[in-house]
Amino acid sequence: MSMNNLGIVKRNIARADRAAVDQLANYGVATIHEAMGRVGLLKPYMRPIYAGAQLCGSAVTVLLHPGDNWMLHVAAEQLAEGDVIVAACSADCEDGFFGELLATSFRARGGKGLVIDGGVRDVRDLTAMRFPVFSRAISAKGTVKAALGSVNVPVVCAGAVVNPGDVVVADDDGVVVVPRAIAQQVADAARAREDNEAEKRKRLAAGELGLDMYGMRETLAKAGLKYLE
Amino acid sequence: MSMNNLGIVKRNIARADRAAVDQLANYGVATIHEAMGRVGLLKPYMRPIYAGAQLCGSAVTVLLHPGDNWMLHVAAEQLAEGDVIVAACSADCEDGFFGELLATSFRARGGKGLVIDGGVRDVRDLTAMRFPVFSRAISAKGTVKAALGSVNVPVVCAGAVVNPGDVVVADDDGVVVVPRAIAQQVADAARAREDNEAEKRKRLAAGELGLDMYGMRETLAKAGLKYLE
Amino acid sequence: MSMNNLGIVKRNIARADRAAVDQLANYGVATIHEAMGRVGLLKPYMRPIYAGAQLCGSAVTVLLHPGDNWMLHVAAEQLAEGDVIVAACSADCEDGFFGELLATSFRARGGKGLVIDGGVRDVRDLTAMRFPVFSRAISAKGTVKAALGSVNVPVVCAGAVVNPGDVVVADDDGVVVVPRAIAQQVADAARAREDNEAEKRKRLAAGELGLDMYGMRETLAKAGLKYLE
Amino acid sequence: MSMNNLGIVKRNIARADRAAVDQLANYGVATIHEAMGRVGLLKPYMRPIYAGAQLCGSAVTVLLHPGDNWMLHVAAEQLAEGDVIVAACSADCEDGFFGELLATSFRARGGKGLVIDGGVRDVRDLTAMRFPVFSRAISAKGTVKAALGSVNVPVVCAGAVVNPGDVVVADDDGVVVVPRAIAQQVADAARAREDNEAEKRKRLAAGELGLDMYGMRETLAKAGLKYLE
Amino acid sequence: MSMNNLGIVKRNIARADRAAVDQLANYGVATIHEAMGRVGLLKPYMRPIYAGAQLCGSAVTVLLHPGDNWMLHVAAEQLAEGDVIVAACSADCEDGFFGELLATSFRARGGKGLVIDGGVRDVRDLTAMRFPVFSRAISAKGTVKAALGSVNVPVVCAGAVVNPGDVVVADDDGVVVVPRAIAQQVADAARAREDNEAEKRKRLAAGELGLDMYGMRETLAKAGLKYLE
Amino acid sequence: MSMNNLGIVKRNIARADRAAVDQLANYGVATIHEAMGRVGLLKPYMRPIYAGAQLCGSAVTVLLHPGDNWMLHVAAEQLAEGDVIVAACSADCEDGFFGELLATSFRARGGKGLVIDGGVRDVRDLTAMRFPVFSRAISAKGTVKAALGSVNVPVVCAGAVVNPGDVVVADDDGVVVVPRAIAQQVADAARAREDNEAEKRKRLAAGELGLDMYGMRETLAKAGLKYLE
Repeated sequence: MSMNNLGIVKRNIARADRAAVDQLANYGVATIHEAMGRVGLLKPYMRPIYAGAQLCGSAVTVLLHPGDNWMLHVAAEQLAEGDVIVAACSADCEDGFFGELLATSFRARGGKGLVIDGGVRDVRDLTAMRFPVFSRAISAKGTVKAALGSVNVPVVCAGAVVNPGDVVVADDDGVVVVPRAIAQQVADAARAREDNEAEKRKRLAAGELGLDMYGMRETLAKAGLKYLE
Repeated sequence: MSMNNLGIVKRNIARADRAAVDQLANYGVATIHEAMGRVGLLKPYMRPIYAGAQLCGSAVTVLLHPGDNWMLHVAAEQLAEGDVIVAACSADCEDGFFGELLATSFRARGGKGLVIDGGVRDVRDLTAMRFPVFSRAISAKGTVKAALGSVNVPVVCAGAVVNPGDVVVADDDGVVVVPRAIAQQVADAARAREDNEAEKRKRLAAGELGLDMYGMRETLAKAGLKYLE
Repeated sequence: MSMNNLGIVKRNIARADRAAVDQLANYGVATIHEAMGRVGLLKPYMRPIYAGAQLCGSAVTVLLHPGDNWMLHVAAEQLAEGDVIVAACSADCEDGFFGELLATSFRARGGKGLVIDGGVRDVRDLTAMRFPVFSRAISAKGTVKAALGSVNVPVVCAGAVVNPGDVVVADDDGVVVVPRAIAQQVADAARAREDNEAEKRKRLAAGELGLDMYGMRETLAKAGLKYLE
Repeated sequence: MSMNNLGIVKRNIARADRAAVDQLANYGVATIHEAMGRVGLLKPYMRPIYAGAQLCGSAVTVLLHPGDNWMLHVAAEQLAEGDVIVAACSADCEDGFFGELLATSFRARGGKGLVIDGGVRDVRDLTAMRFPVFSRAISAKGTVKAALGSVNVPVVCAGAVVNPGDVVVADDDGVVVVPRAIAQQVADAARAREDNEAEKRKRLAAGELGLDMYGMRETLAKAGLKYLE
Repeated sequence: MSMNNLGIVKRNIARADRAAVDQLANYGVATIHEAMGRVGLLKPYMRPIYAGAQLCGSAVTVLLHPGDNWMLHVAAEQLAEGDVIVAACSADCEDGFFGELLATSFRARGGKGLVIDGGVRDVRDLTAMRFPVFSRAISAKGTVKAALGSVNVPVVCAGAVVNPGDVVVADDDGVVVVPRAIAQQVADAARAREDNEAEKRKRLAAGELGLDMYGMRETLAKAGLKYLE
Repeated sequence: MSMNNLGIVKRNIARADRAAVDQLANYGVATIHEAMGRVGLLKPYMRPIYAGAQLCGSAVTVLLHPGDNWMLHVAAEQLAEGDVIVAACSADCEDGFFGELLATSFRARGGKGLVIDGGVRDVRDLTAMRFPVFSRAISAKGTVKAALGSVNVPVVCAGAVVNPGDVVVADDDGVVVVPRAIAQQVADAARAREDNEAEKRKRLAAGELGLDMYGMRETLAKAGLKYLE
């Protein structure tokens, strides 16, 4: 039995149903996270490299070592149309693991975007390409290709477990991971939540108070809230 | 005597004169802070959620608890036209206390924007609404409605004391609070400062040096500054 | 022998050849850093105040003290056409040392931009002026003019040594300093690198894998990489 | 009307009753904070400079500017037996504002310790003196004596409002401020809380579960907790 | 299928063999981490609350919510002799979730220590008890008992996946988790590593260079290292 | 001309006079920094691994790469009796570059301690050995031996330039570097400063105020300080 997951590339991974992925792409990260029962978020230090960046796809996971992006090249070969690369690192590192050449390669192989618990560079080019990247840092610092990591093993990325084939959704609010097995269930719950919010939005826009719409007044009074003139 | 300020909503608060607020809206945060004698700034970690966000209005203050946005709903009812919600938290928390539904409600009730020492979400929607928010973080993490805080009590928000009815001004440079009692005085001082700067700007643009315009050469020499070829 | 470098202004500094500077302006920070052998970067906390800011020029260096911008005024007189001001601070400080009046003055005297290991303000105005600034913070907090620093002495700015006359290049990826003596050499190496990348980009865009293009497969196998179905 | 609180020394301040202060000295910071209804804590970045440091006394407040400790000298004259100096700063600064000479002076004038939202130095000497200090940083960096702050005005120190004469208590768990007017009330509540805990401690030490002692089982079941084998 | 792991207590968990746990207790965290192939470490922000704290035991895992320690009480009942409580939180929070009353209860039920990705309090008492705690923060801030988390589900604690029954080892260098299934294998590898180091230590202490002992000179020369006089 | 300083070991370096080094060892970091005119400090994030650690010696400098400690082994051979190793890193990294085996080797070769802008491990052993280390982090994470750095080139360590042969002094207050050429001059200035302080300490201990001893009252009054009853 191996004591770690290093030096492994898993070729055949199960991906979520395309229909579920497509449906999840309609919803924001906040909505999906709520629909799952408030779990699945990556840490909020993960930020888009340009305002408005968005992605939704099946995860091809990568485990990197600090200052080494070798495995991103290995990962490129494992991409299928619509995949998102999710890269974790064995220790905190803000070097620029990724730039526009790799983005060109990923896109050519079907990759839709990148989520990386590390730094990236060539931000101007990536923005011009509209290649969505969510990262913990931006850094021009280059990396080497010397240390074996893995592709398509379970990783902890920015505090969340991501398994290959899980659905990853990201927008200006952050990044959320939806386990493959419940993708459709979550998509349905997200739709229900959105439908429900449309009605609320209309009432709030008309000036109705959440206090009344959600029936909070009694609970607040019981909790002891006091109004003073 | 109560030992804390929890569980209280103050309904009737004195607000600054509308004329003073309107005048303050013409000046930047840096100018107003200078006009007050370099006080009143919130910590610089408070950032706008979109470039160019701006707000100026009377503060309705809110004291929240970590992970709990109940009091924001209570605050909505206390808004008057032109108010700004200023939310502090009893301990550091970057969860997403606020999103577009609450923004819709606040706007419908006269609210002009939000300053919050915590996280917010639905950034894409808030940006599309042009609802100005200044926050310490962006996070999709939702909050509960369970713990009593207060509305319209004095709060410490991002290092600054804010009293209900104080004027809060925010732009790309940060957030400043102007005590209600000196709002007009500060507005006048800000105008004087801006008038003064227009003349300086012209001279500097023409190539005159600050060294000469401000008469610094003698002081620098006395302090011991040495020029080497 | 003086025990520190304080209270000194060096008037005549050697600058890099204009041709080398102009050539370096064509390349990104990541490319130049690679062309130098992966050295010369400032820490990645140095960020542009607006997306797309760029600068390239000879450094006029400034050593400031916390909360004191006196030496920026002294530096204005030392600017030649095309210079970039590089400001370090004797201790970490995020106050707003610099705003649009100083930018107006710097531009009038030939200054092309600012790199400062501290805070700046008037971000809206600076953005409207398209005056490129790379800083560690944005803060409306004003500074005084009381403590002697120096101009055109070697400084450590955001972790990198900058000598007066070195070439400083900055873009969305960060800031890099090129020692004056090797400016042309680095510019040539950057060009060679870019030429080389154009060919690679074409092949990657056509779907060729980096694994094959860079001939990594054998090395990976030797290192023990295993593919699992 | 002055627009800021700078340049002021308030000589005569009301202090809490000595008896209340002495009683509060018996309780830990966590207990006191609970006894006040979970308010009054300074941010947890405030740490003792040596393990086991403790203090309890009436606050003499000081407002400093970054890199400037002039007002600490002014404050020394305002000390009465048993006072604690509480120093805030107009902007974040980690310089070493305080060392063993000032500690010697403070102690000679009756001062019992220091709480400072900034840096201190001479940690070895201060530890040898057993002079308790709670600070945000340790730094050898010296400060100047050039900028007017104030003594005995209300300050915001590490996120909490401290008024002159309030009681400040600090130990390994952090720092808490008890408003002067409720010092006795809080001391009594702290004692009640401690008495209550002694009984609980005995039962828990005997192996009784909090689940039973606090009667949580039913609430947990209602909330939906499920036990799986 | 449930969409999250909340509201669950798993009673019967498999624990590592006692012999393996006892053997692992002999080795430091750095050694164990090396013996596993350099994986399994929690982030280095996890620090002991007193110098010299150490623990080694089987993990009872807890998933908490920010500001809420209810599940720690639930976890107490699930402890067996020699267990270590490993507490994760659904969002970053530095409140004081744990103090000496809970430590008393845990110890009475067989608990040997705590690893918590959050804050703790009563540090003086915990130190006097020699109850080892590794945490991300120290804070006097109390918590509530209102939100359902879980006990003995897989958690991500400070960046590492911990499954119930895994072995957790902690000392001054940090915290490492050893998957249950390989506990004996890792213990053996750790012993081999320590045996090997004893010999090296003797030679290094005698003045032999690592350059020679590890045979590095040739590799360094091939890599291009140049010695200058 | 080489574009970077990588792959170089300088064998013969000039060291400061032993007498000057020995004299500097008598003074604290704060005193030496003042004696140099308030320069030379490393960033305050550099902390001793145990309370009371102290070192003073000539610097053997090392430039490391993230996650790679190869050059520390190379540096061991360059040590002379009384040297201190000063290690910088080409990008921020908190991995554990150094532990007790290297400490054993360094000590055997004359090394007195380590200053490293990175992480270290084996803290318990290093403390037992009383081997003084000042670092930015503690981490059990191991490093590899793969990338060429340099020994005895100028480095930027924690924000300060350190040249080989400079004197490095460290204690609980932090770390300061004294350029070799002025070591004796600084030692003399430090002695003068300490002599001066002894007298001041006596007067302050007797209750004299700094206000009077330093003659500050008039300057304060001129600056506008107001005393209120």
